[in-house]
Amino acid sequence: MTIYKTIEDLGITIPAMAAPSAAFVPFVFAGNLLHLSGHIAKRDGKPWVAQLGRDMTTSEGKLAARSVAIDLLGTLEAATQDLGRIKRIVKLLVLVNSASDFTEPHVVANGASELLIQLFGDRGPHARSAFGAAQLPFGTCVEIEMIAEV
Amino acid sequence: MTIYKTIEDLGITIPAMAAPSAAFVPFVFAGNLLHLSGHIAKRDGKPWVAQLGRDMTTSEGKLAARSVAIDLLGTLEAATQDLGRIKRIVKLLVLVNSASDFTEPHVVANGASELLIQLFGDRGPHARSAFGAAQLPFGTCVEIEMIAEV
Amino acid sequence: MTIYKTIEDLGITIPAMAAPSAAFVPFVFAGNLLHLSGHIAKRDGKPWVAQLGRDMTTSEGKLAARSVAIDLLGTLEAATQDLGRIKRIVKLLVLVNSASDFTEPHVVANGASELLIQLFGDRGPHARSAFGAAQLPFGTCVEIEMIAEV
Repeated sequence: MTIYKTIEDLGITIPAMAAPSAAFVPFVFAGNLLHLSGHIAKRDGKPWVAQLGRDMTTSEGKLAARSVAIDLLGTLEAATQDLGRIKRIVKLLVLVNSASDFTEPHVVANGASELLIQLFGDRGPHARSAFGAAQLPFGTCVEIEMIAEV
Repeated sequence: MTIYKTIEDLGITIPAMAAPSAAFVPFVFAGNLLHLSGHIAKRDGKPWVAQLGRDMTTSEGKLAARSVAIDLLGTLEAATQDLGRIKRIVKLLVLVNSASDFTEPHVVANGASELLIQLFGDRGPHARSAFGAAQLPFGTCVEIEMIAEV
Repeated sequence: MTIYKTIEDLGITIPAMAAPSAAFVPFVFAGNLLHLSGHIAKRDGKPWVAQLGRDMTTSEGKLAARSVAIDLLGTLEAATQDLGRIKRIVKLLVLVNSASDFTEPHVVANGASELLIQLFGDRGPHARSAFGAAQLPFGTCVEIEMIAEV
């Protein structure tokens, strides 16, 4: 079963790659390493403004992280034209907009990691760091950057 | 027009590479990927102490980020001996010392990104993440690390 | 003198690689770059809960960072089966759980950097960024991720 079949079975539509809101590009290839910019959580096309430990639960944060993973998928598709070319999801850096007492950024991050493993199978398990940021662009709740190998 | 001409036209002097203030080195090559350490904003040779959203405006933060990009340029020059060897600016991680309600780290980061694109032309557009850190070394306002391809 | 002799002389026992507490893996190879996940500080096998600038001194933080470096060593050993295969410690990202006025994350980070340089000799000096995070997984005091070249 190809990844496109899995994506369809999950009812996911690969989104178009979003244009960056600032002076950078969504991805850069360096040899066979594909570096994806930090992608921020959005809802209805706008930044998903919230802070974990203040006005968003861990469960909601997981959903936000999952939605960022879907946007990263859109960028992976735009970069490779064929997700079958992805050899490995190498690394995620998961930034969680956190009140000073929110200690579950790793649980929030699982929302992205679990989807990627579900989609990419044995090419999906990745190295990862997750942490609580003091703030994120536009006040969004989650930002994720990725390194993938093609 | 070479990058050195552009640097001259902008009135920029490439600084000497700064010695790290701790137990690490300013750059490491891994194959053709050049990893630069986090460089902190300085003014008059000392850490530029400020926090966005508290005692520094976004415009000032952009200038600080631009000054860090110039210091990164000094390290790129020391690492390569010839900026023409830089094939691509691959990735920036931009850390902004932020009060908990400052939501424009991406705008601050543009101060560095815009200069790099101006200097490196089509080798300049890069992947990027920007976020608000709770604090930075010495209380500096901005810290930036870079990956470049040679 | 091999690195194993140095490790023994320092009275360090290489720990077994810890199982991640979430949906990711401790390391991923991408070509000859080895990406290690963020490793969190532990004490007695549990997250070492503390925040710099609130209830932990810089000296204690250095010891915590050193202990994370030892855990990273365990993962390097598991990944390579032979630390002699490590060609270079390329890069550390050191995340320090920080109160908003703690400005010495770089000093905390030295606890890890100094040990790595001691262990790996001329293969040890690395690029590095250190910063204050608003929070970390489980409330741990320090988290460190690494890139190494094999």
